[in-house]
Amino acid sequence: MELVWLIPVAGIAAVLYAGWLAFNVLSRDPGTPAMQEIAGMIFEGAMAFLKRQYLTIALLALGTAVLLGVIVGAVSEGVKDIALGSDGQIEYGAMKVGQWTEGLMTGVAFLVGASASALAGFIGMYISVRSNSRTASAAQRSLKEAITVSLRGGAVSGFLVTALSLIGVSSIFFIYSDVLGYPRAIAPFLIVGFGFGASFVALFAQLGGGIYTKAADVGADLVGKVEAGIPEDDPRNAAVVADLVGDNVGDCAGRGADLFESMSAENIGAMILGVAIYAVTDRIEWIMFPLVLRSFGILATIVGLSSVPFFAREDGQQDPMTPLNFGYYIVSILSVGGLAIATKVLLGDAWYWFFFCGLVGIATGIAFVYITQYYTSGNWRPVREIADASRTGPATNIIIGTAVGFETTAATALAIGTALVGSFLLGSSAEITGVPSFTAGIFGTAVATMGLLMSAAYILAMDTFGPITDNAGGITQFSGASESARHITDSLDAVGNTTKALTKGYAVASAGLAAFLLFSAYLDKVKERLDLPLTQQLPIDLSNVDVFVGALLGVMLVFLFSSLAIRSVGKVAGAIIEEVRRQFREDPGIMAGTSRPDYARAVDITAKASLRAMVAPGLLAVGMPVVVGLVFRFVVAPLHQGDVKDSGWLAVSGLLMVGTIGGIILATFLNNGGGAWDNAKKFIESGQMTDENGEVIGKGSAVHAAAVVGDTVGDPFKDTAGPSLHVLVKLLSTITLVLAPLFIAT
Amino acid sequence: MELVWLIPVAGIAAVLYAGWLAFNVLSRDPGTPAMQEIAGMIFEGAMAFLKRQYLTIALLALGTAVLLGVIVGAVSEGVKDIALGSDGQIEYGAMKVGQWTEGLMTGVAFLVGASASALAGFIGMYISVRSNSRTASAAQRSLKEAITVSLRGGAVSGFLVTALSLIGVSSIFFIYSDVLGYPRAIAPFLIVGFGFGASFVALFAQLGGGIYTKAADVGADLVGKVEAGIPEDDPRNAAVVADLVGDNVGDCAGRGADLFESMSAENIGAMILGVAIYAVTDRIEWIMFPLVLRSFGILATIVGLSSVPFFAREDGQQDPMTPLNFGYYIVSILSVGGLAIATKVLLGDAWYWFFFCGLVGIATGIAFVYITQYYTSGNWRPVREIADASRTGPATNIIIGTAVGFETTAATALAIGTALVGSFLLGSSAEITGVPSFTAGIFGTAVATMGLLMSAAYILAMDTFGPITDNAGGITQFSGASESARHITDSLDAVGNTTKALTKGYAVASAGLAAFLLFSAYLDKVKERLDLPLTQQLPIDLSNVDVFVGALLGVMLVFLFSSLAIRSVGKVAGAIIEEVRRQFREDPGIMAGTSRPDYARAVDITAKASLRAMVAPGLLAVGMPVVVGLVFRFVVAPLHQGDVKDSGWLAVSGLLMVGTIGGIILATFLNNGGGAWDNAKKFIESGQMTDENGEVIGKGSAVHAAAVVGDTVGDPFKDTAGPSLHVLVKLLSTITLVLAPLFIAT
Repeated sequence: MELVWLIPVAGIAAVLYAGWLAFNVLSRDPGTPAMQEIAGMIFEGAMAFLKRQYLTIALLALGTAVLLGVIVGAVSEGVKDIALGSDGQIEYGAMKVGQWTEGLMTGVAFLVGASASALAGFIGMYISVRSNSRTASAAQRSLKEAITVSLRGGAVSGFLVTALSLIGVSSIFFIYSDVLGYPRAIAPFLIVGFGFGASFVALFAQLGGGIYTKAADVGADLVGKVEAGIPEDDPRNAAVVADLVGDNVGDCAGRGADLFESMSAENIGAMILGVAIYAVTDRIEWIMFPLVLRSFGILATIVGLSSVPFFAREDGQQDPMTPLNFGYYIVSILSVGGLAIATKVLLGDAWYWFFFCGLVGIATGIAFVYITQYYTSGNWRPVREIADASRTGPATNIIIGTAVGFETTAATALAIGTALVGSFLLGSSAEITGVPSFTAGIFGTAVATMGLLMSAAYILAMDTFGPITDNAGGITQFSGASESARHITDSLDAVGNTTKALTKGYAVASAGLAAFLLFSAYLDKVKERLDLPLTQQLPIDLSNVDVFVGALLGVMLVFLFSSLAIRSVGKVAGAIIEEVRRQFREDPGIMAGTSRPDYARAVDITAKASLRAMVAPGLLAVGMPVVVGLVFRFVVAPLHQGDVKDSGWLAVSGLLMVGTIGGIILATFLNNGGGAWDNAKKFIESGQMTDENGEVIGKGSAVHAAAVVGDTVGDPFKDTAGPSLHVLVKLLSTITLVLAPLFIAT
Repeated sequence: MELVWLIPVAGIAAVLYAGWLAFNVLSRDPGTPAMQEIAGMIFEGAMAFLKRQYLTIALLALGTAVLLGVIVGAVSEGVKDIALGSDGQIEYGAMKVGQWTEGLMTGVAFLVGASASALAGFIGMYISVRSNSRTASAAQRSLKEAITVSLRGGAVSGFLVTALSLIGVSSIFFIYSDVLGYPRAIAPFLIVGFGFGASFVALFAQLGGGIYTKAADVGADLVGKVEAGIPEDDPRNAAVVADLVGDNVGDCAGRGADLFESMSAENIGAMILGVAIYAVTDRIEWIMFPLVLRSFGILATIVGLSSVPFFAREDGQQDPMTPLNFGYYIVSILSVGGLAIATKVLLGDAWYWFFFCGLVGIATGIAFVYITQYYTSGNWRPVREIADASRTGPATNIIIGTAVGFETTAATALAIGTALVGSFLLGSSAEITGVPSFTAGIFGTAVATMGLLMSAAYILAMDTFGPITDNAGGITQFSGASESARHITDSLDAVGNTTKALTKGYAVASAGLAAFLLFSAYLDKVKERLDLPLTQQLPIDLSNVDVFVGALLGVMLVFLFSSLAIRSVGKVAGAIIEEVRRQFREDPGIMAGTSRPDYARAVDITAKASLRAMVAPGLLAVGMPVVVGLVFRFVVAPLHQGDVKDSGWLAVSGLLMVGTIGGIILATFLNNGGGAWDNAKKFIESGQMTDENGEVIGKGSAVHAAAVVGDTVGDPFKDTAGPSLHVLVKLLSTITLVLAPLFIAT
């Protein structure tokens, strides 16, 4: 077990580094009293929402945990030991875990994963709402200081979330194997509940937060900018605090939970794949490898993040993306080094093939940085095309924006497809005695995924940077700070938009690359249940009617889920608009600036409506794979000719695999389309567009109004439905993995 | 070969009936001189476009035919006889067709199919442009007469297109088998080129026509209604004739070619499935069954269509949909009778199972009538929800419209999924000695598809009714006819919108149901090439990396294709807007009504731009499956460990099957979303919406303007991208079927 000591070292290093960053941020000037006041309101609103949301989620999670334990206990037949048989196949030994014990351990793992995911979301949000007024304050002094504060604030959450995932997965693995004494080969199967718990919480956190943030944003804009004709973030708008709260609960808490579960679920899936090779080679390193690689990633990220200030120029003339990109390159280069060490030390003689797989993953991350920037930044054709289309009104803006959004799926699919085929072929070239090339190939895709995720802390830091600067901008505007401070927060906000888009691209890439390893973990579970050797291939035949219809339903699921998520935003926004209109109507002093709107009430209404709205799509996501599996197992299978027993798990396989494809493609459209619409509006606002007489078409023009329509349409696409789809895709993997025995008739 | 005589009888009956209808329509009053003049302009514009479009398509088709012949000749190894072996498996006998002969026959079949498809499109358009002024004239007298004329005009095209497909497929089958003397078991494989040719032409016809019609519509609206503030179809708008031409070349010619190729390709696919059962049972009826069933469908449709006037009430107070629906029920009931006879006489002892399969198909057709009406008609929740959302502006209109469009995929997927599983299970229950239940099950889905298609002529008649009434409305407005005539054409136009939406739902349903039979035809071709028995199952394993990445690329293809189609509309509309603006600017007399705009120039510009724009998406659709197949065969396969040869055809399988799923779902969103937006606008125009004070919110209000934005966005969705996707899905099937040998390394 060489290098395993790195796991606690990296985990502790990340926590210490995050502690230092947090101390550094919190000890800074929290801004003028006006800034502190509004920051306080945001803090209260965000905490109140999170408290209420977590209560709802906790109830749902507790119920699910109990149900899960009972279901697994009732339908499972327990877990048998896994070992190499005399014929070179992997065989099952004695029963090591009874079925009810398995149920209990799965339920407990679910709760631990769920709690850790909630904690990750909370951390992201807490630091963000503490950093916003400090960034606003810093913006009164210099751009460089503002970047430093906001990036450090973001980094706290990036490191803590990453560390939490690493420590959580390795601790529960350690406890289930070394402390409770179950064989290491089966421990990864016992902790799958952790991944399910994490994605369960992430789904509701992302949905609730995503609905909240965009409903508040759309509602505040429509009732303020469009109806009342007052500027964005104007204190007279009762919904403006809700809007600022939304940035935190959606982008921070939601994304934190999202990446936490991505890292955790993919890590556990990769460990399950390692089991087969461990059984053959008897080297536990194959199971521990993902944890070690992520440890290297954390160390690389600490260095990379610390290097960012060295690339920032003092004069403030620099594009703030430049130092961030340099930091990312440092992380990538150090990751390559870590990858080389980890593969060489842990993965035996054919290690270099897996080193190449990891390189594919790192390269995929970099590719997505460029793809996302190309499609969502104002410097290239796509965004300018949308801006141009706004000349003929909102309809053509939407038409061309949709075309651009659809187009972005091409680069995404090609990049993911190439990475999958490439890492599979490289992995399968590794010759490991007794391991079929197919198994090694799948492990190759897992290594690529782990390679991609090495920079997760950095990406998450950049992501949380977004809402911090967004909030800082709002606080600056709201508290009536100086023009120059506003200018600084505006420029940071534009960068924040790009980094938020990058994170979504990264999440899509990780979902795509991880697809294979997560399916394989599910299939391994099915094989275990059917008593088939782990190294045997189990075909999921698309020309089988059960698989095909499952696949059809999988693609339908991602559309229906997105429909519910998008509609929720419209509905909740409607409730906010009604409330602000009521306040304007009942107290004319608000518009005159003599009385203060009731911000708290608007926050409260948004919170309640969002929580109600998150339940339907959440239950659909959790319920549909289960219903499909049960219907095909108990209704369709008996109607088949002959003794057909496989309909249940086959239909679920189709739903899982093709639902994943549909989710990746649809999320790409929603994320990038939304991002492009947003930046087309910003492109026009930046004054870079002129009419035929050479005069600038800017804010306040009809063209700008058309672009605002596109931006508003894109909001629920890119910040509610799109990010929730990433989580849905992973949830499909974890729920089917945990509940596999439910769909298998024996 | 019982009942085979029905095929020529039905074909001739359809042609005679269509001839009588055409004579009846053409002998009616062609309207006032003003009407005839504008009708003449539409006729000229449509013919000029079609001539130019067909020239382009002919060149592309000729090149493709030659290439196809050469490729098939070069890579195929010829066609062997198929017969039952002594072990009960289906085996291959002596070589019956040399490889170059196969290439030649495939190329010829392609050209015949392409020509027939073009002719079908031409017929649809020709009758439509001849019926429009006659409908306008009839509208001056009575609603009933206007319905009669327009429906008969539509029926001419419905019957001729259906007859053409029936006669075309049966003739080429007869010539290749009985005249040229090739065994009947292999003749279906020789005529697959017919289906490819038909879908090749349909794709370009639908794309070119779809881009033309929506670009002209959007362009005319934006530059006329929005910019210049003149009514729709106002003679001062230079683009208005182009708009009217567009209805014909898009909706008539495009949809005619679309349904022609659906019927033909699915018919041929079903015949290929029959081959396996024919080889076992030695009853040619299994191959001829689809042709006989369609003959019954034609006869049922003649009766059903003739019955429509009996359900029309004289007083004109009736919803025009009512008699149309009654006619459809008559067709459905008679189809059930025909289905019973055809299955009983042709399909042996277990015929009743296939009778039930056919019922599933007929029921699916009826289900789609209701699903489509629910989602796109103003009487139910979805459209009203969009209308309501327009109160807060165009952005919320688009957000809720997207949510509704996404939601519609659920009912579609559930209906198709249920029908597929149901017909498969029913078919597989039929015990036919020597035939595996899997093969019988697939044949069951083919019978369901054929059952659905029995009413194709009726659906197509209703569809062509749409553009005829749309045109009649335009002519009435343009020629300054009486208010009452306008009122009649307006009410017909609203019905036409519903019938057009129905046809799209029907096309999606047929694509979904046919999915299985078309895949199976492709797999049969692969088995033939790999020398595997036709009755053996060939798994397409989704957990194989080649299949999975092919699947990912398949879903990407439908998004990228839609992106190109939608963008083309935006681009061409831009060109039209420029031209109309130029005419307004250079000749102020146009706006004053003293000089006449240059309609012909606007028509010409639209035509040229549309033809240029159709090439890129068309080539993508044709090229991508080929490129994917070649890359996986020649690049990826050799990189696999071991002697892997299957990558090419496996990746193509994934692309085909999952691309079909993606295409069905995306087309459903685009069609129904667009239809719902359209009717939300019409709902507001009908004066059914009121504000909080109870006052009507109608035309000219801000709410209506918001709904117009949604309608405009929906135009290219529902009339360009959506319908082109149906064709794309079928084209994928036919192209992979024909070119299968290219992807198979042996």
